[in-house]
Amino acid sequence: MIDPLVVERLIDSALAEDIGFADLTSELVIPATARAELALNARQDIVLAGIDVAARVFRRRAGCTVDLRASDGDRVKSGALMAEVAGPARALLAVERTALNFLQHLSGIATLTAQYVERVAGTRAVLIDTRKTTPGLRALEKHAVQLGGARNHRLRLDDGVLIKDNHISVCGSISEAVRRAREGAPVLTKIEVECDTLDQVKEALASGADMILLDNMELDEMRRAVALSAGRVPLEASGGVRLETVRAIAETGVDFISVGRITQSAPAVDIGLDAVIRA
Amino acid sequence: MIDPLVVERLIDSALAEDIGFADLTSELVIPATARAELALNARQDIVLAGIDVAARVFRRRAGCTVDLRASDGDRVKSGALMAEVAGPARALLAVERTALNFLQHLSGIATLTAQYVERVAGTRAVLIDTRKTTPGLRALEKHAVQLGGARNHRLRLDDGVLIKDNHISVCGSISEAVRRAREGAPVLTKIEVECDTLDQVKEALASGADMILLDNMELDEMRRAVALSAGRVPLEASGGVRLETVRAIAETGVDFISVGRITQSAPAVDIGLDAVIRA
Amino acid sequence: MIDPLVVERLIDSALAEDIGFADLTSELVIPATARAELALNARQDIVLAGIDVAARVFRRRAGCTVDLRASDGDRVKSGALMAEVAGPARALLAVERTALNFLQHLSGIATLTAQYVERVAGTRAVLIDTRKTTPGLRALEKHAVQLGGARNHRLRLDDGVLIKDNHISVCGSISEAVRRAREGAPVLTKIEVECDTLDQVKEALASGADMILLDNMELDEMRRAVALSAGRVPLEASGGVRLETVRAIAETGVDFISVGRITQSAPAVDIGLDAVIRA
Amino acid sequence: MIDPLVVERLIDSALAEDIGFADLTSELVIPATARAELALNARQDIVLAGIDVAARVFRRRAGCTVDLRASDGDRVKSGALMAEVAGPARALLAVERTALNFLQHLSGIATLTAQYVERVAGTRAVLIDTRKTTPGLRALEKHAVQLGGARNHRLRLDDGVLIKDNHISVCGSISEAVRRAREGAPVLTKIEVECDTLDQVKEALASGADMILLDNMELDEMRRAVALSAGRVPLEASGGVRLETVRAIAETGVDFISVGRITQSAPAVDIGLDAVIRA
Amino acid sequence: MIDPLVVERLIDSALAEDIGFADLTSELVIPATARAELALNARQDIVLAGIDVAARVFRRRAGCTVDLRASDGDRVKSGALMAEVAGPARALLAVERTALNFLQHLSGIATLTAQYVERVAGTRAVLIDTRKTTPGLRALEKHAVQLGGARNHRLRLDDGVLIKDNHISVCGSISEAVRRAREGAPVLTKIEVECDTLDQVKEALASGADMILLDNMELDEMRRAVALSAGRVPLEASGGVRLETVRAIAETGVDFISVGRITQSAPAVDIGLDAVIRA
Amino acid sequence: MIDPLVVERLIDSALAEDIGFADLTSELVIPATARAELALNARQDIVLAGIDVAARVFRRRAGCTVDLRASDGDRVKSGALMAEVAGPARALLAVERTALNFLQHLSGIATLTAQYVERVAGTRAVLIDTRKTTPGLRALEKHAVQLGGARNHRLRLDDGVLIKDNHISVCGSISEAVRRAREGAPVLTKIEVECDTLDQVKEALASGADMILLDNMELDEMRRAVALSAGRVPLEASGGVRLETVRAIAETGVDFISVGRITQSAPAVDIGLDAVIRA
Repeated sequence: MIDPLVVERLIDSALAEDIGFADLTSELVIPATARAELALNARQDIVLAGIDVAARVFRRRAGCTVDLRASDGDRVKSGALMAEVAGPARALLAVERTALNFLQHLSGIATLTAQYVERVAGTRAVLIDTRKTTPGLRALEKHAVQLGGARNHRLRLDDGVLIKDNHISVCGSISEAVRRAREGAPVLTKIEVECDTLDQVKEALASGADMILLDNMELDEMRRAVALSAGRVPLEASGGVRLETVRAIAETGVDFISVGRITQSAPAVDIGLDAVIRA
Repeated sequence: MIDPLVVERLIDSALAEDIGFADLTSELVIPATARAELALNARQDIVLAGIDVAARVFRRRAGCTVDLRASDGDRVKSGALMAEVAGPARALLAVERTALNFLQHLSGIATLTAQYVERVAGTRAVLIDTRKTTPGLRALEKHAVQLGGARNHRLRLDDGVLIKDNHISVCGSISEAVRRAREGAPVLTKIEVECDTLDQVKEALASGADMILLDNMELDEMRRAVALSAGRVPLEASGGVRLETVRAIAETGVDFISVGRITQSAPAVDIGLDAVIRA
Repeated sequence: MIDPLVVERLIDSALAEDIGFADLTSELVIPATARAELALNARQDIVLAGIDVAARVFRRRAGCTVDLRASDGDRVKSGALMAEVAGPARALLAVERTALNFLQHLSGIATLTAQYVERVAGTRAVLIDTRKTTPGLRALEKHAVQLGGARNHRLRLDDGVLIKDNHISVCGSISEAVRRAREGAPVLTKIEVECDTLDQVKEALASGADMILLDNMELDEMRRAVALSAGRVPLEASGGVRLETVRAIAETGVDFISVGRITQSAPAVDIGLDAVIRA
Repeated sequence: MIDPLVVERLIDSALAEDIGFADLTSELVIPATARAELALNARQDIVLAGIDVAARVFRRRAGCTVDLRASDGDRVKSGALMAEVAGPARALLAVERTALNFLQHLSGIATLTAQYVERVAGTRAVLIDTRKTTPGLRALEKHAVQLGGARNHRLRLDDGVLIKDNHISVCGSISEAVRRAREGAPVLTKIEVECDTLDQVKEALASGADMILLDNMELDEMRRAVALSAGRVPLEASGGVRLETVRAIAETGVDFISVGRITQSAPAVDIGLDAVIRA
Repeated sequence: MIDPLVVERLIDSALAEDIGFADLTSELVIPATARAELALNARQDIVLAGIDVAARVFRRRAGCTVDLRASDGDRVKSGALMAEVAGPARALLAVERTALNFLQHLSGIATLTAQYVERVAGTRAVLIDTRKTTPGLRALEKHAVQLGGARNHRLRLDDGVLIKDNHISVCGSISEAVRRAREGAPVLTKIEVECDTLDQVKEALASGADMILLDNMELDEMRRAVALSAGRVPLEASGGVRLETVRAIAETGVDFISVGRITQSAPAVDIGLDAVIRA
Repeated sequence: MIDPLVVERLIDSALAEDIGFADLTSELVIPATARAELALNARQDIVLAGIDVAARVFRRRAGCTVDLRASDGDRVKSGALMAEVAGPARALLAVERTALNFLQHLSGIATLTAQYVERVAGTRAVLIDTRKTTPGLRALEKHAVQLGGARNHRLRLDDGVLIKDNHISVCGSISEAVRRAREGAPVLTKIEVECDTLDQVKEALASGADMILLDNMELDEMRRAVALSAGRVPLEASGGVRLETVRAIAETGVDFISVGRITQSAPAVDIGLDAVIRA
């Protein structure tokens, strides 16, 4: 779960952005004393992510209570009731769109991730994410990926070393790049090397890298890389992976498959919000 | 264009989120004096949005220059060079992913929006967006929608009045709700009423509302609403609009069609970044 | 009412500004366990604004309770008790000045606004405000204006289009300026045109503008503008309006009169704060 | 002069508040390449304050230059040109209102302060301010007071000790309160005691207080307090001071007269902004 | 005590810095329902500072309670229990290091300060601090100094005037520098002059300065300065003061001795945290 | 090097904290046009850290230039000139203390770290830091540690897994704790297990942990742990390490030795700042 400090800051920014000075309509037409009850229902099959964030959005308003009927990570069937919310009508109407925007976006990521994960079931391959996330939502999106059944690659640029082609060329060799990284990186941080060719894979294996990224390789090359490594270090396949191609990649024997699409291109899931207001 | 103050704040948040304390890899393996040149190329046909934001991301770093070859709103062909960037290698590598994350996401929205807009070409209908945006990115996404050829509905809860079913029920009638809103809203703000039935449309027309939203109506109902209004106030069609259905809706004669998908579910566009680093 | 997120941020800034590291005097001379009771009394007739903000200032401190005897918008007579506050003495003394600064300033605006509103009673003219507000307090001051019985013009630069002389000259004509605005503005936002002459008023009426601002016109010109418009679009009179002149302007038949003085030059109202402290 | 960090933060907040996502009108109707020239003229006699802030507002936008013709503290005659500004038209129009809002408000304070200062000319009394300032603008308003010829009392609660009646009552005596304060206050901070009676003045003089505040005393009492003190510690007169009464107070021989009205109730000064825009 | 607003902001920054997105280890290996009990024990003799801050750190997490067994300012013996904390295990483990970092650092300052204070016991000299504090922690460190038995000099650059050699040289004389300061400083702020020689001390005494700083003087010079001043204004000794030298300085008869080391170079105290976790 | 965004934020906070509204003394006694030249000299042998931060502090002010004569990581001899700074006198005097506070604190850490590193020269042991840092300064202090010749452990709670005794007890076994961590941790993050006994070391070796922490073990136990591991995973010695004991620990053959004192208890180094001001 993402730390509450991080989540609360995101919520406050999102609410400020959507509300501005006030929810004009509700302030003008709804009495201050009116109360509302909201129900959130799934309108499609969903792997749930962000219900905890949505609950915090509602609870951020004085007097609002949330009764969760499902938890992050749950597989929710279309039609299922996910949460009931009650509180002052003006308060709830001012924040409902923000709550849904978080919930639909994050559940979209978890749901798409789960589809990729299903495709590789039975292989040794584990799905992982990338840094291709929506600006501002990295933490929540990385968590949604986990809820969808995949794992995270690195969280940001300071918690993992990934030596790419440009780093290698400026260092002269993979081994020199790995040497420099090994000397200076925090001791709990792993070093991964991006390889375009099998020769680079051999050099990376010799360099003491902790992990190797196979960049845009053909399936056959991947299989040979798997054979070369022979389990010495984990191999990650990367580059334009799609739902249609992920299974074949998994069957080459790689350990990890990273997919940018799960965070960059997941459509929002459909969630209904029904409200009853009493004056 | 979105105000620079808004954009710079988003950029700083996004960079802080992705970099953390430092770009570990580049700091460790690339000499401080190395320089880099980056080229951004379209890998698919794109309606461009966010190139201005991306340029600001690079320019946020000392010594980085950007040479734009395309502008926001341009229709860029697959393969086209969109920008060249030069500067200290460590600085550029630390920010390139953030620049791309903005650019791919926003261009995704503009590109999808343009597809919807094309579908309604020749009708009187104008595509508009909703408040279904990604938390934190409202301003940029609304601008991307404009670049894609559509217009914005309202920007947030304080710059437009939209009276929905719940507001109506708590007021007793549409006319009472409109009256309350008219008395208190800023004088440059319009008042729109959401209607589920043709009876409500009639009541809304009588109430002096500035605009009417037809919520999830059948095509035939929409046509009758258009006839009822007879051009007196603009009509907006809303509810589950898809690429496949938007044309038929436009042909009912409505003035506006709002689509949540263009901001909620647009896949990122494919953009390549090629780098050359010199020690 | 202004959204709590907006208000709480303003309160925290104001408290930080006034307190610094600590309320030196109270920390040094009052025991930590001492309690205080405060009473807020009107020392003049007041149209109340900011009592809700003041209450939030006190409640921001642990253990402080507020018993409100009057509400925002109330017309309070000189001598009336408006609120009683109780809590730890150090906490209350540290924040009382900030609470009063909000309350006296905002009630000053509401009280002056109400005087203008009274002057135009019985005419069709509605008083409205401007963007001439105190930096940082826009939201609260706009709300105080409403409590004083007037309405808001626009809240900021993004929620209304106001085409001024400079915009017109660079576009070549009013109709071209309105056309450009109409094409790009959010659909719930109105377009107003500032006119210096009756010829411009005619052009603006023809352009499809939603509202017309009569800038610094003589009373006679205003009357002719009212005749020209004949109710087609609302007319706003603007420019150096004073308590002495507002009635005559209202009697020309304009729909709105905007007054910068109500937010720019309202004197603070006199409010007394009596405290009792018990060790 | 107030520190640039403080000023820049206030400017950014004020701009964000007024602009929102963008200056809708100018973005829509003015070409991106158009340039503007602005001239700021005094429309009344002004003691200038905030021209430095206003210049920073304009300079905050890329490509804007400011040519100051008058400086903070200057006495500017009605009709005088105070500054010329040039830059991209969209940029200047987006920020001009904010620049003026600072300038008119702060010059209003300096101008009113100067009127009070003039009234006491030739006496020993020095005008000082209070903590009755507009929330968020304390630093700028305190500086405007200096530009008007008065001095500051304390800046906030942590840079001066002011022992009031409540502090005294909870301590049991003035001397005990002063003793506690003396033991714990920073060594460069003075200790002032508020006195309602001449007996209290005697006790305060004996307590070693650095300064004495005469709260709401009659003129005759003040004169007797001046005689009692005989120059040992500075005396401050306080309480409902007005332009009509300040001279008589000054002639009692007090050292300082504090006035809340100069910061709480100063009307904005009239300043004209003329713009020329070229496409 | 430092104002809660200041403290809460520092705590939130510190937690964000240490936690990042989440406490990875505890989130992964400890069940969400597990509870923990922590005990904080002194492992050396300590003058306690920061226990109030540490308690706020724990209380910042939902469901955490703190039972304080010692208070800030207490002299705690090695082995003593200082606080017991209980709450959700994940929440407590995520914040314990931050709580300890504040507590050990601030108690280190109070403990070292107390050692200096003890050395000057029985003399008239009072220990004071400087602006040589850790960036970001000024308020808390100044408070720790008070808890250690010393007093504060000034809190920052705006709450005291300290005229140094450079200020004097640019003004031409001490008396001119003091005159300028006296005219413009807030009236509750004292003016101190830094002197390198006895001639300067004489000039400073004549100038009407409120306090004199003897900069890096020999003991004998200090004694002569004390004789010169003869109690007219307080004298502060400053410059490289150490535990070994502070007594001799105090015996010269100076009123204040400022020590940078108490805030710049105090080693953290040793505090143990024992935890019990129940699934 | 720490990312400029992180550093600039810390600098702004530190300046705001020290300056408040303004540098009162310099604003009052130094003419606005006066210029200053500063020289920073080492007054002891120093391993330099923070000179880059100090330079940024000065450059944050308009018109200030910095000429660095030494770089972060340099071993500077007592008496050496490290930097020359020039600019407006008021600007430089307002920020010099903040620049020095960063520089002396961070160089203190680097200098103490280097002393520890020297002690273990010739052994295989590498010095590493902990999370025992000063709240707010984690990034800068971790970087100072590197400049002193040691490496970082983890940067915060989300970039490394460290399974401690409490985690183990709630999981039932080391292997279960490692299993849970392995399943959920980002793939570039290592998993370390804290062990109190040799039996635990054996269990940790079997569990597949990436690294083992030997907590407060005797030298002899450490040697046996080294033998048990036989180079399979790196071993870290931890617990109360001092300059006097670090060599013996290093000679046991452990790979890493973590020391809290280098960040928690490093005394500030002595640095002189000489200024010349010209009117």
